[in-house]
Amino acid sequence: MRPLQGALEICSINTATLGYQLPIDKTLDAIARAGFGGVAPWRREIEAANVKSVATQIRALGLRVSGYCRSTYFTAPSREKFLASIADNRNAIDQAAELGAACYVLLAGGPPEGSKDLAGAREQSAQAIAILWEHAKSCGVTLAIEPLHPMYAADRSCIVTLEQGLDLCERIDPRREGFLGVAVDVYHCWWDPKLSEMIRRGCAENRVVAYHVSDWLVPTRDMLLDRGMMGDGVIELQKIRATLEGAGYIGAVEVEIFSQHNWWRRDVDETLEVCAERLQSTC
Amino acid sequence: MRPLQGALEICSINTATLGYQLPIDKTLDAIARAGFGGVAPWRREIEAANVKSVATQIRALGLRVSGYCRSTYFTAPSREKFLASIADNRNAIDQAAELGAACYVLLAGGPPEGSKDLAGAREQSAQAIAILWEHAKSCGVTLAIEPLHPMYAADRSCIVTLEQGLDLCERIDPRREGFLGVAVDVYHCWWDPKLSEMIRRGCAENRVVAYHVSDWLVPTRDMLLDRGMMGDGVIELQKIRATLEGAGYIGAVEVEIFSQHNWWRRDVDETLEVCAERLQSTC
Repeated sequence: MRPLQGALEICSINTATLGYQLPIDKTLDAIARAGFGGVAPWRREIEAANVKSVATQIRALGLRVSGYCRSTYFTAPSREKFLASIADNRNAIDQAAELGAACYVLLAGGPPEGSKDLAGAREQSAQAIAILWEHAKSCGVTLAIEPLHPMYAADRSCIVTLEQGLDLCERIDPRREGFLGVAVDVYHCWWDPKLSEMIRRGCAENRVVAYHVSDWLVPTRDMLLDRGMMGDGVIELQKIRATLEGAGYIGAVEVEIFSQHNWWRRDVDETLEVCAERLQSTC
Repeated sequence: MRPLQGALEICSINTATLGYQLPIDKTLDAIARAGFGGVAPWRREIEAANVKSVATQIRALGLRVSGYCRSTYFTAPSREKFLASIADNRNAIDQAAELGAACYVLLAGGPPEGSKDLAGAREQSAQAIAILWEHAKSCGVTLAIEPLHPMYAADRSCIVTLEQGLDLCERIDPRREGFLGVAVDVYHCWWDPKLSEMIRRGCAENRVVAYHVSDWLVPTRDMLLDRGMMGDGVIELQKIRATLEGAGYIGAVEVEIFSQHNWWRRDVDETLEVCAERLQSTC
């Protein structure tokens, strides 16, 4: 396992961690100033600015882009809306290419409002990813299917386990051309009895393209916005990273914390300082 | 699939659904009066009364006991506390035998407070179940491992998928002597991409010993106490039961709803009436 002490250059900050308090240019400056080697911005930030100038700033700061967040949900109640989602995601893939992002993060969505058809949502997602993958390959962008925690299955992602994500990669890319993989986010998959097995499988198939850290708080007070800082919860972060890197992962360690009542209320520089400390001591 | 219209005799009410508003004797009367054929009581109710007289009343009312809830958590921070949990659960298994319960429901617990050792918690649970199984067999009681939703992995159950539960059954009872199986609760496993596969496996191995229904509300406002009435959420109840019964399940359909802000505030007879209606129309 790579030591993270003194190795913040392999660590990245997902800007959601900072609660979108600052415009993207100030956020990037703060992340670089704190010593991190990477950033994962969100579309809302990039689209509120100018993608070319953001890309220029990122390069000037020497940052790498560990991921670009995130897809418009694929699941849609009509063919028209499905195609609109595809078009929107194509544009975002172009932005990811411009930013030099290591991956474009895919969230599938749950069954459309009013629908209970989970299998249908999964099939729609598979079709969308297959379509987008063709575009992604042509742009040189890697798609990262991010399985979310099962508690989001109804409204955010019908893709809920690494096994499911890897099976989907295999279905879409049976010849292993690449540009398609999974994001391993500890918050979403720490509970999985097959976590180690699927991390090893994913690495063996060369399909783990992102690694996100945070922590699971006990109790968790909000299903979406109460993620913990690494070390404040119950996730065995060092054990998981040891499995991942033992299996060959050499990408970024990206911090992604949604924390409406704690970290999002703190000063950006303070949060970055704590992230740096925890990455080096407990991840 | 069995029709549930006019077949409330195969349906059961887990008393948690009624919010423990009444003492157990009144609860049993209400359930029988509403036409249900079964009940799943909780230890708090039985231990506050007299197990023999409750058992007598249950028989007099013609009710079957679809399950007895539930085990003291197995995971413990010390050997002493582990053994205390075993002793406590042995007593409860004796009560389950007295009640003629179809199963004694096992909840594993999460890692002990202050621990992050999920694998250790799983191992401790496996050991506890193996020990209790010997006692259960001698009493003629079937143990039902209930995998809980992964959102409870930190504090309620390190056993989180049907696959994991079935693997555990196979490990403990490789010769398939019986008296050990899993409870399929739709609230806990509806999201699982392997749900149908694991239901079929569980039935083929003769290890599905209970089936619980409720619904997943969107949004879910509380991680523990905001379960929905069947039909009010997104779970494909008829599809799941068709898979289950197509695979050979012939046990009870048990309603188990934790609903602090809705159903627990309603009159017991009203809740029972709605349960009866929904079981017959949407399950």
